[in-house]
Amino acid sequence: MKIKPNIEDKKLTKKLVGLNEELKKKRIDVIEEKPLTLFLNDQEIVTMMTINDYPEYLAIGYLLNQNMITLKTKIVSIDYDDELSLIVVRTVNKTDYQKKLKKKILTSGCAQGTLFGDIMESFNKIKFNHKLKLKKSWIYELSKKINLTPSLYLKAGAIHGCVLCERNKPIIYMEDVGRHNAIDKIAGYMMMNKILPENKIFYTTGRLTSEMVIKAVKMRIPIVISRSGFTAWGVELARQADLTLIGRAKGKKFFVLSGDSRIEDDS
Amino acid sequence: MKIKPNIEDKKLTKKLVGLNEELKKKRIDVIEEKPLTLFLNDQEIVTMMTINDYPEYLAIGYLLNQNMITLKTKIVSIDYDDELSLIVVRTVNKTDYQKKLKKKILTSGCAQGTLFGDIMESFNKIKFNHKLKLKKSWIYELSKKINLTPSLYLKAGAIHGCVLCERNKPIIYMEDVGRHNAIDKIAGYMMMNKILPENKIFYTTGRLTSEMVIKAVKMRIPIVISRSGFTAWGVELARQADLTLIGRAKGKKFFVLSGDSRIEDDS
Repeated sequence: MKIKPNIEDKKLTKKLVGLNEELKKKRIDVIEEKPLTLFLNDQEIVTMMTINDYPEYLAIGYLLNQNMITLKTKIVSIDYDDELSLIVVRTVNKTDYQKKLKKKILTSGCAQGTLFGDIMESFNKIKFNHKLKLKKSWIYELSKKINLTPSLYLKAGAIHGCVLCERNKPIIYMEDVGRHNAIDKIAGYMMMNKILPENKIFYTTGRLTSEMVIKAVKMRIPIVISRSGFTAWGVELARQADLTLIGRAKGKKFFVLSGDSRIEDDS
Repeated sequence: MKIKPNIEDKKLTKKLVGLNEELKKKRIDVIEEKPLTLFLNDQEIVTMMTINDYPEYLAIGYLLNQNMITLKTKIVSIDYDDELSLIVVRTVNKTDYQKKLKKKILTSGCAQGTLFGDIMESFNKIKFNHKLKLKKSWIYELSKKINLTPSLYLKAGAIHGCVLCERNKPIIYMEDVGRHNAIDKIAGYMMMNKILPENKIFYTTGRLTSEMVIKAVKMRIPIVISRSGFTAWGVELARQADLTLIGRAKGKKFFVLSGDSRIEDDS
């Protein structure tokens, strides 16, 4: 794994004293969430709540997944100010997002929970090709490897995980208080490290709502696996884009509701 | 229970055909999510993704929890248009929220995920009194009753639940694709039915983030129980307001990180 949860980082969790079920004092680990305000050039875009382990990836991934920059956008600088909890992304060409910011859709997903209306407009143009295969055994192997990796979730709970995988190997494992931060951090990492999406598999602990499917399609990752369930609209969008959508992946169980032709039975 | 999940309502779930882990065709129930656009007087406020079972409660609760109306606001009408997925709340006195809408904080919670900056400013004024007691046995009884109630969660998954309780009795059980819709629907129900919050307990399946704590405090409900975990900022806010915050309530386990003086050991 190139990136995995950094459970030793003392800034990400806090020890708090409380009472357990026997009303005895005990110390537990609790996850930290902090506000991070994002500027694109001169424009304040949003304040996000995040564990703030990768502010640069989060900023770039957020802007990408909100259609505010594209993979072709030339980034001049990314300046992060820890004290002010500010991150400023500067681009060569400037655009005014004031109008776009007015038309927000609050969605059912965790975290950022907003998408611009025009994402839906560009959605129909994307269709995945069929070359990529997913072996059934990979579903089990990926779930097992991810669940056994020491994580902030296992340490403190109250956090979502998203993992970029290739074949049966988890590569980039990101966690955050909102799963949309986790997926945005992966998108930012992929852009900044020029990672190709076409042969990747995306694993998430969160639900497969419309927003998660839209983000995966925007990132051009053709296969999505979740241990959680589906929403009907998420499935509909996945079927439109011919994305492989696998939910309820727990133990030896899973359920495919879209793109099942990519699955190879090697059991 | 005055309101419980309506698992018979055919508009809330959809039967979809997919493949199970044996790659055999099977039909499963999947939750529906729909956009609902909210207007306050002439102003478009937001488009939410919701299961849309109680658009009126959701609209009122959203406006309340975003500080756009108060319990004293005189509502003239609430018009819901099913075909256009529109709901319009009209008030006697009109205000311009254009400025406020510019300053949004996207938070780590599920669903709506937005709070206005000024909610934090009003937060410090609220402090709960100590009269209300919570018997330890109620924590177990509430969890058990809620978990055993037939729900959309048990039927289709991918949904959050919030329950307003009194003593050991669940009263209003709301579910939604975003848990913030579920809590907002409860807030709307409470305002429209003049339910007093001071002696109530709030149960949620979701995590105890800053946003959930802020909403509970705003709704003046002094005790919050969750089967999920905490974030450090959620705990800090709960301690400031002297809210009783109980997380990780599963089986015979739970953990109190704020306001433990309200708990009575009757075991």
